[in-house]
Amino acid sequence: MQNLKTASLEVKQNQLWILCQQSLPQQQNWLPAHTVEQLVHHIHTLSVRGAPLIGLSASLLLALLAESGQSPQQLAIALDTLRASRPTAVNLMNNLDQMKLALAEPDIVSALSKEALRLVEEDKQLCERIANAGAALVKPGSRLLTHCNTGGLATAGVGTALGVIQRAFSQGKVNHVWVGETRPLLQGGRLTAWELGELGIPYQLICDSMAASLMGKKQVDAIWVGADRIAANGDVANKIGTYSLAVLAHHHQIPFYVAAPGTTLDTHCPSGDAIPIEQRAAREVMGVAGSFGEVQWAPEHARVYNPAFDVTPAELISGWVLDTGVVTPAQVQAGAFQPK
Amino acid sequence: MQNLKTASLEVKQNQLWILCQQSLPQQQNWLPAHTVEQLVHHIHTLSVRGAPLIGLSASLLLALLAESGQSPQQLAIALDTLRASRPTAVNLMNNLDQMKLALAEPDIVSALSKEALRLVEEDKQLCERIANAGAALVKPGSRLLTHCNTGGLATAGVGTALGVIQRAFSQGKVNHVWVGETRPLLQGGRLTAWELGELGIPYQLICDSMAASLMGKKQVDAIWVGADRIAANGDVANKIGTYSLAVLAHHHQIPFYVAAPGTTLDTHCPSGDAIPIEQRAAREVMGVAGSFGEVQWAPEHARVYNPAFDVTPAELISGWVLDTGVVTPAQVQAGAFQPK
Repeated sequence: MQNLKTASLEVKQNQLWILCQQSLPQQQNWLPAHTVEQLVHHIHTLSVRGAPLIGLSASLLLALLAESGQSPQQLAIALDTLRASRPTAVNLMNNLDQMKLALAEPDIVSALSKEALRLVEEDKQLCERIANAGAALVKPGSRLLTHCNTGGLATAGVGTALGVIQRAFSQGKVNHVWVGETRPLLQGGRLTAWELGELGIPYQLICDSMAASLMGKKQVDAIWVGADRIAANGDVANKIGTYSLAVLAHHHQIPFYVAAPGTTLDTHCPSGDAIPIEQRAAREVMGVAGSFGEVQWAPEHARVYNPAFDVTPAELISGWVLDTGVVTPAQVQAGAFQPK
Repeated sequence: MQNLKTASLEVKQNQLWILCQQSLPQQQNWLPAHTVEQLVHHIHTLSVRGAPLIGLSASLLLALLAESGQSPQQLAIALDTLRASRPTAVNLMNNLDQMKLALAEPDIVSALSKEALRLVEEDKQLCERIANAGAALVKPGSRLLTHCNTGGLATAGVGTALGVIQRAFSQGKVNHVWVGETRPLLQGGRLTAWELGELGIPYQLICDSMAASLMGKKQVDAIWVGADRIAANGDVANKIGTYSLAVLAHHHQIPFYVAAPGTTLDTHCPSGDAIPIEQRAAREVMGVAGSFGEVQWAPEHARVYNPAFDVTPAELISGWVLDTGVVTPAQVQAGAFQPK
């Protein structure tokens, strides 16, 4: 396969490398993702993260494994293993469904490679369209709040929600960005703060519990988040804490936007109730760990509840900003996301 | 002064010691609080914390300084310095106002000592009354959510909100406690988790952003928090994140109770808008530090917003549980907290 590089993925001499997002921003470590086992491990540890990026990395790896001579049977098993690695994110499943079609082509190697590269290219274009559609909704002088990390690290392009913010900033419409740190894994505090700093966009980092206070003081004009899965009724699964922000936005009459590529849509999932929510290890809440170090502050044997995602019901969402444009609550209610 | 010991304060051989709450639960370090400078430092670093406890520690220190021979002038300066050490908490000011009256007595040494010991004894009794009044509001089978730390460490007695939970548990009415970790300083994750573990009360620790998701799943029957100051209109200043929980509780129609001694009431403060909110250092949000270790995950030079408290408006509060009994929203509206 041709060499390829995005903010957080690289194909070099026919091998996949990923920028370890658990090490950022203290270290920029590129990790080998040469095997299914390696990539699944990186997905589980969130070294590779961001719903779009997970799907692209899995697709590229499959194509590279095909080029290295794996049999169709081996590739089919690899595909299923990768598909199961993150149950909440649907881009992974959608991307791999496309790859599965390529597995049925006469020239598997060429078809998989072509499809993986097409998905990467498509993701860049999806990000561009989301950024443009979303930026049109941002009012001049806006102070925007975002959660988790939805920028260039999470996609092959400019990102989803953070892509919108970046585009609106370049249009002179963003005065300030509030960044929720996003406990437990601190994607906001580590990654979004770092990306905004690199982009020269003014921001302030907050603990997740401070967002309500800012809203109460009228310091937030809109909230922008990404999505791991959008159900047919418009419900959205996203990083834990998203639902909290949506309820708070509703109470304070602040617009709450979800930005995501169409691949995040799961028309066969009737509502948020049907989206599986991954439960993660207790140690993530008992302390923190990363390239910055590791500490545990909770008492030994503390009991913990640690869902990785939550579900925001459609009625709390002001708009779904997809690559195809903005979908309104009325359109969602009229069945815009229902199976065709 | 006679020797004295509570969960987190000790007077021994006429000197004050405090249990370092920044070191718990990993280490139980008793720190000297022999001078005003030492105690103010402990208050600023939250080694001494909990609105009632701050007031008691300052009162005891003043009495001990009087016994050691400090002049009335020196004591008056000490009192003013201590009074200014935590602008949001009003118990400190109320306690020191009582001590100021003692400073005007003929036998200062005896009057200050008597008054400080009376305040400690009074706090124990206030906690008992709050616990009993609050427990009467807890329904059998309750799953309660709490924030920050309001237990025996924060007072001279059984605590405020956590005292209520403990009392209701001993009456067989509490099935489960959800503990918000309380970023940035993790009083929930360190102190409340530890206290509940020691008490044998079943709990699970969560990140603050997970509370909404639990409420949405109908896993929370009531929320109990403490207070740093209650204004005359019923608005409550408390640990940052409290307002967030109050809005979420309102949205989910879950009762939201504030438990505090009457010394937390500031009838001369008309509303929450008039309560000064302490802004704290950026490094608290950029990472964590304590006896468990110290790490920083945010990028160097990250910009941070870090208010220590927020204000919950009276209309989001289901009941104010004081040592004098439960005050209802109707009573607050009718002027229960207005100056007499």
